[in-house]
Amino acid sequence: MATGNINVSVENIFPLIKKFLYSDHEIFLRELISNATDATLKLKHLTQIGESKAEYGNPIIEVKIDKEGKKLHIIDQGLGMTSDEVEKYINQVAFSGANEFLEQYKEKVEDAGIIGHFGLGFYSAFMVAEKVEIITKSHKDEPAAHWTCDGSPQFTLEAHDKTDRGTEIILHIAEDSLEFLEEGRISSLLTKYNKFMPVSIKFGTKTETLPKPEGAKEEDPAPTQEVDNIINNPNPAWTKQPSELEDEDYKGFYRELYPMQFEEPLFNIHLNVDYPFNLTGILYFPKMTNDMNMQKDKIQLYQNQVFVTDNVEGIVPEFLTMLRGVIDSPDIPLNVSRSYLQADGNVKKISSYITRKVADKLKSLFNNNREDFEKKWDDIKIVIEYGMLSEEKFFEKADKFALYPTVDGSYLTYEELEAKIKDSQTDKDGKTIILYASNKDEQHAYIEAAKGKGYEVLLLDSPIVSHLIQKLETTKENISFARVDADHIDNLIKKDEEQISKLSDEEKETLKTSLEAVVPKDKYTVQVETMSSDATPFMITQPEFMRRMKEMQQTGGGGMNMFGNMPEMYNLVVNSNHSLVSDILNEKDDTKKEALINQSLDLARLSQGLLKGEELTNFIKRSYEMIK
Amino acid sequence: MATGNINVSVENIFPLIKKFLYSDHEIFLRELISNATDATLKLKHLTQIGESKAEYGNPIIEVKIDKEGKKLHIIDQGLGMTSDEVEKYINQVAFSGANEFLEQYKEKVEDAGIIGHFGLGFYSAFMVAEKVEIITKSHKDEPAAHWTCDGSPQFTLEAHDKTDRGTEIILHIAEDSLEFLEEGRISSLLTKYNKFMPVSIKFGTKTETLPKPEGAKEEDPAPTQEVDNIINNPNPAWTKQPSELEDEDYKGFYRELYPMQFEEPLFNIHLNVDYPFNLTGILYFPKMTNDMNMQKDKIQLYQNQVFVTDNVEGIVPEFLTMLRGVIDSPDIPLNVSRSYLQADGNVKKISSYITRKVADKLKSLFNNNREDFEKKWDDIKIVIEYGMLSEEKFFEKADKFALYPTVDGSYLTYEELEAKIKDSQTDKDGKTIILYASNKDEQHAYIEAAKGKGYEVLLLDSPIVSHLIQKLETTKENISFARVDADHIDNLIKKDEEQISKLSDEEKETLKTSLEAVVPKDKYTVQVETMSSDATPFMITQPEFMRRMKEMQQTGGGGMNMFGNMPEMYNLVVNSNHSLVSDILNEKDDTKKEALINQSLDLARLSQGLLKGEELTNFIKRSYEMIK
Repeated sequence: MATGNINVSVENIFPLIKKFLYSDHEIFLRELISNATDATLKLKHLTQIGESKAEYGNPIIEVKIDKEGKKLHIIDQGLGMTSDEVEKYINQVAFSGANEFLEQYKEKVEDAGIIGHFGLGFYSAFMVAEKVEIITKSHKDEPAAHWTCDGSPQFTLEAHDKTDRGTEIILHIAEDSLEFLEEGRISSLLTKYNKFMPVSIKFGTKTETLPKPEGAKEEDPAPTQEVDNIINNPNPAWTKQPSELEDEDYKGFYRELYPMQFEEPLFNIHLNVDYPFNLTGILYFPKMTNDMNMQKDKIQLYQNQVFVTDNVEGIVPEFLTMLRGVIDSPDIPLNVSRSYLQADGNVKKISSYITRKVADKLKSLFNNNREDFEKKWDDIKIVIEYGMLSEEKFFEKADKFALYPTVDGSYLTYEELEAKIKDSQTDKDGKTIILYASNKDEQHAYIEAAKGKGYEVLLLDSPIVSHLIQKLETTKENISFARVDADHIDNLIKKDEEQISKLSDEEKETLKTSLEAVVPKDKYTVQVETMSSDATPFMITQPEFMRRMKEMQQTGGGGMNMFGNMPEMYNLVVNSNHSLVSDILNEKDDTKKEALINQSLDLARLSQGLLKGEELTNFIKRSYEMIK
Repeated sequence: MATGNINVSVENIFPLIKKFLYSDHEIFLRELISNATDATLKLKHLTQIGESKAEYGNPIIEVKIDKEGKKLHIIDQGLGMTSDEVEKYINQVAFSGANEFLEQYKEKVEDAGIIGHFGLGFYSAFMVAEKVEIITKSHKDEPAAHWTCDGSPQFTLEAHDKTDRGTEIILHIAEDSLEFLEEGRISSLLTKYNKFMPVSIKFGTKTETLPKPEGAKEEDPAPTQEVDNIINNPNPAWTKQPSELEDEDYKGFYRELYPMQFEEPLFNIHLNVDYPFNLTGILYFPKMTNDMNMQKDKIQLYQNQVFVTDNVEGIVPEFLTMLRGVIDSPDIPLNVSRSYLQADGNVKKISSYITRKVADKLKSLFNNNREDFEKKWDDIKIVIEYGMLSEEKFFEKADKFALYPTVDGSYLTYEELEAKIKDSQTDKDGKTIILYASNKDEQHAYIEAAKGKGYEVLLLDSPIVSHLIQKLETTKENISFARVDADHIDNLIKKDEEQISKLSDEEKETLKTSLEAVVPKDKYTVQVETMSSDATPFMITQPEFMRRMKEMQQTGGGGMNMFGNMPEMYNLVVNSNHSLVSDILNEKDDTKKEALINQSLDLARLSQGLLKGEELTNFIKRSYEMIK
């Protein structure tokens, strides 16, 4: 048996890095700026603990394009490297400088906010550069070093006359990567990845207008000056304590995050936890629309102020991916599969922490300013309803503040609703019937009929409401939901009292036969009912169960395909106590009788939105004739 | 000045690989099976050209889970390795065995279909395994070798008694990756990445029912046998020549690709080109719905039968991402940024080749079976219309076969449409007016009025049709589109002949004053018109320009925000030649006059779908009274 060491062939390490280190070449800029930030924060830490005599000052990082020379410069004023350190950190690939540093200053290092893995990301420069130079001067009293490498494993290292502290990386951009010499490209990369990094980043200059000197004439132009163009905000709102921030600060940060978004967020949730995991962030509730897919993928994930991704699937519970804002956590494993992420204990804890914080915030908004919460309800309900359906723990909390609006504009909690309708809307079998409408306009006549009986009617118009109703019916006891047009109102909530019928059973039978002779059988089932004489003579209803199943199927209820293919089913309810219906029964002339039934049927269909096209045109023509 | 070689620190190469080689750990299985396939196809090639004496036979690749032993086995019957080759290909990281092989057999290698970069992907095994073994017996007459490595750079290599040709990789799965010992997980990975790889892959066995032997009794159970469960189809349809395939084969392959999809595709396009780039594939046109986003990301991208991604953004023109199917090309650079991809010359050529092939296929379907093409039009129009809007070259081709359906169910090309309406629908200024409706039901009365004049009315109901109309108006000469309800028909197509007015100008003025006293000013502009006496007395119209701009804004026309916020604008057109209107003019009783105007206005609003809610309920109540 032989043993030996695997020999990593250096001739081939660069192509490997170029090909596999990152799938997206643009990442090199994020990595180099992370290193520069790292070097700056390390120096800060060393000066603070007295291990460096350097003057920390107010260091910045500068990014410079030299288009003619095909070069990109990244210059920092951090701790720099001696020749020996270049040997150690740069010439030894995969030797993690940051690890050693962390080892050495273990106790105090956490609050210094060190990022990145020094020495690894650096090589990503070779994804876009054919040659890379490092000119670096350490904060220690040693001469500057100048390292050059053209992507072959051979490098040169010599002394340099640089006198100011810090490191300058010079990328000689390769022919296939010239895009990275475009100002617009670099500028958008800086905005994407570095917008909130903790050290100021300069990219070019900009012109600032100064106040006019005293005594200047009106026609004199205002003086201007060139100032550094700082592209980042090193102290974004989420890194601060909630107590330091006013409502206006949160709104301002929202505008920073979404400059193209003109609507203000409804409210925000500041996340801030350091045990058992580290996480900060600010989530915003925007105004929601009913199209749930449109608004996903707006939350940005950072690690120590470096942008990572805007895909937070698996980290944030799905119903909250409709929110906006920022999450910053070093504890979320990256570069792992989504399925691994979902099984990771830390990530699970993060996800349930976020859910709890959101529920608590909603609860406190509800408790502290009910009126304001009601105003916002229609804009946020989709998230809350979706959460109630998908997370049992959220359901339990939300059940206390989820609102059920009535068609008259009151907003009731479930408890309030139940208390309010218990007496009047409990049927003879002891079941409380919750009446609802999905559209005030379309179901107007049916709503009026229910209100005429003194009943409350909810207005439930979310796309997923049929699923929520289904859940409530199985969670709560002895209740049932019914849409106002599911039957006539006396059938929806059956009481003991019976309406006295003006017609005999025989007359009813005759009426039904006459009606069935005219009304198309395949579309409407005729249902003669004894109702109050001032209720509508004809109405079209659609049974609750089938309609709800069809709706659930349309909004993604699995396994209910069979309902989706069923035809729409309608009943024609005829009020045998209405005088028009008596007229029809007593009409001797068959043509007239048919005309009466047809016009009545058309009016009933009109009320349910079923009279369309040619039938509607003909109805209107007939009606103009009747006016004359 | 010093020079030196960058020293790759082997102690740290494994963490590097583990972290950065692939962002998704599950990729290891694809890589190892690619290597196994590679080794098998290499052997095939060598036996074919007489460089190996081995019996090629009918080799398979086997994947086996040993749950108790926490091991995953990948076994091939390919060319195997000698001890020396293990040294060379495995112990030298980043030494690309495939490259050397390709170098050696350059001329004939292309048709052997070699995939992968042997020796590189192998190390991805360490992303999920704490220890990896290789047991391998070369096709050459040499003893088998057994290589073991626990992820440290130290390996052991010894002889092994394996006698059958090929390589077995044994992964000792690490604690954090136990998911890869689940049968369901491996099975779904094999289906995702290896479904169409060119060597048969066995994963477990399945029970097959055999025919009953002769003379068996009815109650005897049918005999069964265990057979290999082959998870892939090594010869998928796209690797064959179009001439070898029948329509049924294409449909069968569609079901293979989308087993959960029950609807059949409408037709397919076989892609097959080897110069100036290599590309094969089959695209399918499914039935499209109007929700464009729902159906994206269904095309699968392969490289030499290995699944790569289902995100073909940048490779396929955006309007074709709604199609389904497979594209297989070794010439698409992976692991590059999308912006780089879009700038790549090869990719651009691929994209325009696909566009051309799709246009040609549509053209030939149109030419060869117009009737069938018309039947499919409604299901495919969204793609074609979107393509006409976004790709100028596609517009030019599609202009010959894009269809414009009429409300009566004919389908006309633009040329046919123009020829048909030129005479009758050219107005007094020489402009040809193309009339259209967006909904046959909702605009029924208006369509009837236009048809009454002998005009053609198109039915244009795609969500992006307003953009297409806008484009056609600027591309074609002297034409203009108008929706049937944009004005009354005599105004939409103005002819020289004048209607004779029954009313004097003074009477018209009086009429207008009476109407304006009743009709709400903020909603309707009253427009008294001299029309034919049998035209409708009242109608509500909505001017074309503003409505179209609003629609374009809703479906993503940039920079037209201002229109989105404008209120809906309607005109009330009153036909001064209608007898009902004379009645109104002559009515002396003000209350009756107001009632007449209101009922007429309600009927006009009903016809345009504007009478809703309480107003509709009241209208219906009034109408029931009138019947009695």
